[in-house]
Amino acid sequence: MTILPPALTAVIEALGKLPGVGPRTAERYAYYLVKNDPAKALGLSEALQDLHDGIGVCQKTFALVPAGQELSDLYTDPKRDKTVVAVVAEPFDIVALEKTSSFNGTYHVLGGLVSPIDGVGPEQLHIDELISRIDEDNVAEIILATNASVEGESTALYIQKQIGPERPVKVTRLARGLPIGVDLEYADQITLTRALEGRQAL
Amino acid sequence: MTILPPALTAVIEALGKLPGVGPRTAERYAYYLVKNDPAKALGLSEALQDLHDGIGVCQKTFALVPAGQELSDLYTDPKRDKTVVAVVAEPFDIVALEKTSSFNGTYHVLGGLVSPIDGVGPEQLHIDELISRIDEDNVAEIILATNASVEGESTALYIQKQIGPERPVKVTRLARGLPIGVDLEYADQITLTRALEGRQAL
Repeated sequence: MTILPPALTAVIEALGKLPGVGPRTAERYAYYLVKNDPAKALGLSEALQDLHDGIGVCQKTFALVPAGQELSDLYTDPKRDKTVVAVVAEPFDIVALEKTSSFNGTYHVLGGLVSPIDGVGPEQLHIDELISRIDEDNVAEIILATNASVEGESTALYIQKQIGPERPVKVTRLARGLPIGVDLEYADQITLTRALEGRQAL
Repeated sequence: MTILPPALTAVIEALGKLPGVGPRTAERYAYYLVKNDPAKALGLSEALQDLHDGIGVCQKTFALVPAGQELSDLYTDPKRDKTVVAVVAEPFDIVALEKTSSFNGTYHVLGGLVSPIDGVGPEQLHIDELISRIDEDNVAEIILATNASVEGESTALYIQKQIGPERPVKVTRLARGLPIGVDLEYADQITLTRALEGRQAL
């Protein structure tokens, strides 16, 4: 006996594969789509159909680009400073940094972070390509903009080691300290320790 | 300058229309689909494409049925007792009740609840069809299984009034009381009042 039509169960199952979406949430999404104009479900369907075909990877920065485009606009734009490279783990980190409007260098997407527990070694990341870029583009500064997590820190350390002290490039990383709007008493110890260590003259 | 490929932004926008999905969550879903096997995005795409075409409405109970099927299996199954009808607001409420395995009657989906604030009047709900069913199927009991909310209660009252005292049908509603696993001290006043009113002999 079918309690729900198979067409609906198929959507619930497929939505349930999204990260953090359990069966109840998937049901809610699916039922919303059933109740609404079919154009909504079809619009999402079409967008998903074109997703992978419409996306390519920049050959230089490994940022996501429209399919068929070889290099990211964020790299080719003459206003961007190719001698400053922010190294990020994932393409979406670029969006976060771009939103600040306070960076006019270029990016380099690693494609993940070194994480032995997930079976990700440094050889799976675009680190060799980063080293090549240093010479090709005469890079003056590498900003290691990886997460402030164990994986982020160890990846940053690994890259720093790979670059080596002989190359004439400055290696920096994002400041650690108090996030804006957080009270001192609620800050965790490590954050506070880093904020003390990185204290700045006024 | 495109930071993200349009094919990706299209998916983020379409996913962002799902209930409770903000731009960050939509980005997370979309990026998960980008990183994974295209089969996942395409599978969801196809399921969504077939969603509305694959779903019909039962002519008797207004439950969702596979397209082309006139009556719900939950109505036609000879094991289901047609003289007991559980009245629910939405098709998914049927799933919740079926999961209990403690109901073998049939269902009647109202298609919403009376809610003046949302512009839903009783004439938009399948109440007339419910009244007809009482006579057609010799219904002995109507279980008003609407939510324990203001809208649920007032819809139940309205239906009770429409059925009227002259019809030989028992009208019941789901018990209100303490949910299983909740401590008395954390129960709200209304729930506790209802639990007292509805107390049962041991």
